[in-house]
Formats: sequence, structure tokens, C-alpha cells
Amino acid sequence: MRQEHITSRQNPLLVHIRKLQNSRSYRKASDEFVAEGTKLLEEAANWYPGLHTVVCREDLKLCKLPEQVRVVTVPEDVLKSISTVDTPQGVIFLCALPEKRQADLTAGTLLLDGIQDPGNLGTMLRTADALGVPVALLDGCADPYSFKTVRASMGAVFRMDIPTITESEVLAQCAEKGLMLTATALNDLAIDIRSADFENAVAVIGSEGQGVRQSLLEAAAQSVIIPMQPHCESLNAAIAAAIVMWQMKNGEYGG
Amino acid sequence: MRQEHITSRQNPLLVHIRKLQNSRSYRKASDEFVAEGTKLLEEAANWYPGLHTVVCREDLKLCKLPEQVRVVTVPEDVLKSISTVDTPQGVIFLCALPEKRQADLTAGTLLLDGIQDPGNLGTMLRTADALGVPVALLDGCADPYSFKTVRASMGAVFRMDIPTITESEVLAQCAEKGLMLTATALNDLAIDIRSADFENAVAVIGSEGQGVRQSLLEAAAQSVIIPMQPHCESLNAAIAAAIVMWQMKNGEYGG
Repeated sequence: MRQEHITSRQNPLLVHIRKLQNSRSYRKASDEFVAEGTKLLEEAANWYPGLHTVVCREDLKLCKLPEQVRVVTVPEDVLKSISTVDTPQGVIFLCALPEKRQADLTAGTLLLDGIQDPGNLGTMLRTADALGVPVALLDGCADPYSFKTVRASMGAVFRMDIPTITESEVLAQCAEKGLMLTATALNDLAIDIRSADFENAVAVIGSEGQGVRQSLLEAAAQSVIIPMQPHCESLNAAIAAAIVMWQMKNGEYGG
Repeated sequence: MRQEHITSRQNPLLVHIRKLQNSRSYRKASDEFVAEGTKLLEEAANWYPGLHTVVCREDLKLCKLPEQVRVVTVPEDVLKSISTVDTPQGVIFLCALPEKRQADLTAGTLLLDGIQDPGNLGTMLRTADALGVPVALLDGCADPYSFKTVRASMGAVFRMDIPTITESEVLAQCAEKGLMLTATALNDLAIDIRSADFENAVAVIGSEGQGVRQSLLEAAAQSVIIPMQPHCESLNAAIAAAIVMWQMKNGEYGG
């Protein structure tokens, strides 16, 4: 464990961290992302080989870190200057982005289509990780490696694969593997999710504003709806995703 | 519809609104609460008899309002000075708090214990409203009528009863009515939620940090757990609540 001390807010490492926090394209170009908090650091140290640099308050007691991790201590005011929260826990850390990988769809995969809200995306990933549901991201989703998504995921991003996939690849893989493309929808043609056939299904969930894109709705073998009281328009997208995952998994646990 | 115009940021109505946004005790003392946004106003106008005052930007086209509602127009900068969001939609409105009522528990009620996060509380209320699950709030919950909770509820607070209940009253009503107090827990004694008996159940869900209070865990007739991957500690509280509600309701819809 290499240890260093930094006191200037203009130190290139701190400037780099601020840019990583604020820009998805900068994260992509640097092939890195950043997250904050002691609990998340613990998850990264336990599960994520890409963890490489930790910036922390001088007096903070760190969890056990892998040998090669660079540790940089800073005064409290410097830490505050790069913190993304009102009451910083005293640690921010950098990780390499995982290798980009195209999804290999299997029965029970949840496809996320255009989920823009980082909090919802992170919560969906957290739920998928807890329930053991594989996910794949269609284009138009928020960055799973923004600090907001990482935070809402409670570290799930460090434990799970988050591959991406294109629409045409979804259709090709479903055809090839005999997977039943299942769209969640809010229209009258959709069948009650409790009567749906999830045996070979891949389910697509859309954003709160837009729902699943039209072309996938049209290509879907079935559309399902979560039954709601007539005066309600929708559920929160992360809640809807959780109920879809729960229904897909139901009966498959050891119990 | 009475219409007025205000231009001073120091106008007593605007000062009053800021206080209602910031203080639960002031809301209680004034017997009023405040919310923001065109969609929420529509829900309040449709469902909530307590809506009494609307403050909006001069050029905003309002939804249809009940006759007795007071409408106050303000310049954009004044509206911004009382807004709680970065990009205001142009309307903030005041409502009387609903009459305080103690819960009359029935089978299928969800009890919320110490839910502190307004976003989680609002999402739980939205889900309960959509799935048709009655709720009751134990002490220690966030205020369901803070603007953050109202926003996360997507207007569910305008449509549903949100009674409160004390712990001793929960125990008394369960005993009297033969209701099965069911706690959600994360310990090894809890049974898989899919095997639980919800026929006469009242389910308690706790906060993310604390879970259900010890005394209710001890008094519960059964404890249930949502099965998770071994490396995961918990679900988001609103997600856990949604799965509990879904299991409680399952099979009860018309389908």
C-alpha cells in the first residue's frame, strides 16, 4: 500500500476526480470512475479488482485494501472540496471501468431501456443483484458508473456484470436462442403479469416518462402489465422493475 | 376563483410558504402543507378537498380548479424564490392537512415503522395507492406531507388515507381482531416471504438503517424475509415494501 499526502486543491489528482464526477465522456476517455463513502469502498475492496486509488481524510480508519492500491491522504477541507455529499464520510476512490462487454442473453434477463434517472438505475441494479437477475443495458440509459448510480446501487455495480446490448442484437439473440421477448407496457393489450409466461422470457423495462421504445413493443412476443388501481397511472420505474424481477424469479429459489 | 397578484418576495404569503416547506412543526401549527408542480396540482385538484391556494407564474395555464381556490400570480423571479426545484414548472400550492385519524387495522394493512427518508416514504405511499394496500404510520416516520414526500408519492397523498397508529394500539387491535402481526426481518429465524401466511396478516416494514423496532419484532406472530443472494445485505426499503405488498395482495386482484 503506497501512501501519499496532498494539500493543494489544485493537485492534478483532485482536478481529475472532479472531472470524473461531472462528465460521462471524461470517464469514458479516462477509462475510470469515482465513488464516495466508507461502505461503498468496502464493497469495492471486497469485490472489484479495478479499485486502484483511495483519497481520504488523514484520520480516517480505512477498511483492508488490496496491496497495490494507492492511498492519498488529504486535509478535511480538501476532502470537502471534492465531496459530492453534504456530510462527507471522508473517502473518495477511483476505479478502472470494467471491460465493455456485449450481453449474452439468457432466460430471465432484465433489459433496461432508456432509464435516465441515476437513482432509479442504481436501485434497479441493487435489486437485480440481490434477487440474482442478470441485466443488460440498452442505449439511452444513464451511466451505471456515475457516482449517483453507484451510490444508489449500494455497491451492486462492484459485484455484478453490467453488459450493454443494441436493439438489433436483442432481436437476433432472442430469435437464435428461442427467448420470448417480453415488454412491460401500460396499455390495454398487455396481459396481467401474474398470468405471463416467463419460462423463456427476457423482460424489457422502460423509463418512467417514455416506457419501452415503440420498436421493441412491436417486436415483443408478449406485453405484460402490473395490475393497478384504476385511478393510478404508473409505478415508480424501480418499483415496477422489482415486481417484474420478482415475478420472473418466483418459484426458482431454493426456498 | 379569486385572482390576485403579488410582486414582493417579502409578502406574508410567500414567507408563510417558505416556512411550510422547511418546518414540520410549522406545518402542524398552521394545519397546512405545500407542494409544487403542475402534475401534482392536477392530482390535488382532482382528489383533494383541502386544496385552497395556488401561487403561479403569470403566464402559466392552470388546470381546472375548484371554485373556492385562491389563485395568486407572481413574476417568474418571485416564483423562483419559493421554488424547491432547479427548474420550476411555475406553480406552488397550499392545502389544509387532512384530519388526524387513528388507523383501523384490517387484514392486508402495511405498517410503516420509522421510515425516515422522504423519498422512500413517498415511493411506498405511491406503491400502496397503486396496488390498493391500506397503510398506517407508526411514530418515527418522516412527515408524509413534506414537499419531498408529496413529490415522491406522485400525488398519492392526495388520494389516500394516511392514518397514524401507536405501537400499543397495533398490539391491541391485532389481538382484538385476530390479525396476524407479521414483521419483515433480516435474520435467520424469518421464513421465506413466499411461504408466509398473509390471509389475516398486517405487515410491518422498518427503515433501511434500523429495520422493524425490537419490541414489534418480539411481538410479531411471524417474521418474513425476502430471499436474497448471500452476498447482499438488503434491498432498498421502498423496494422491500413493494415486494411485501405484492405478496400480500397476490391472487386478490380480479385478474
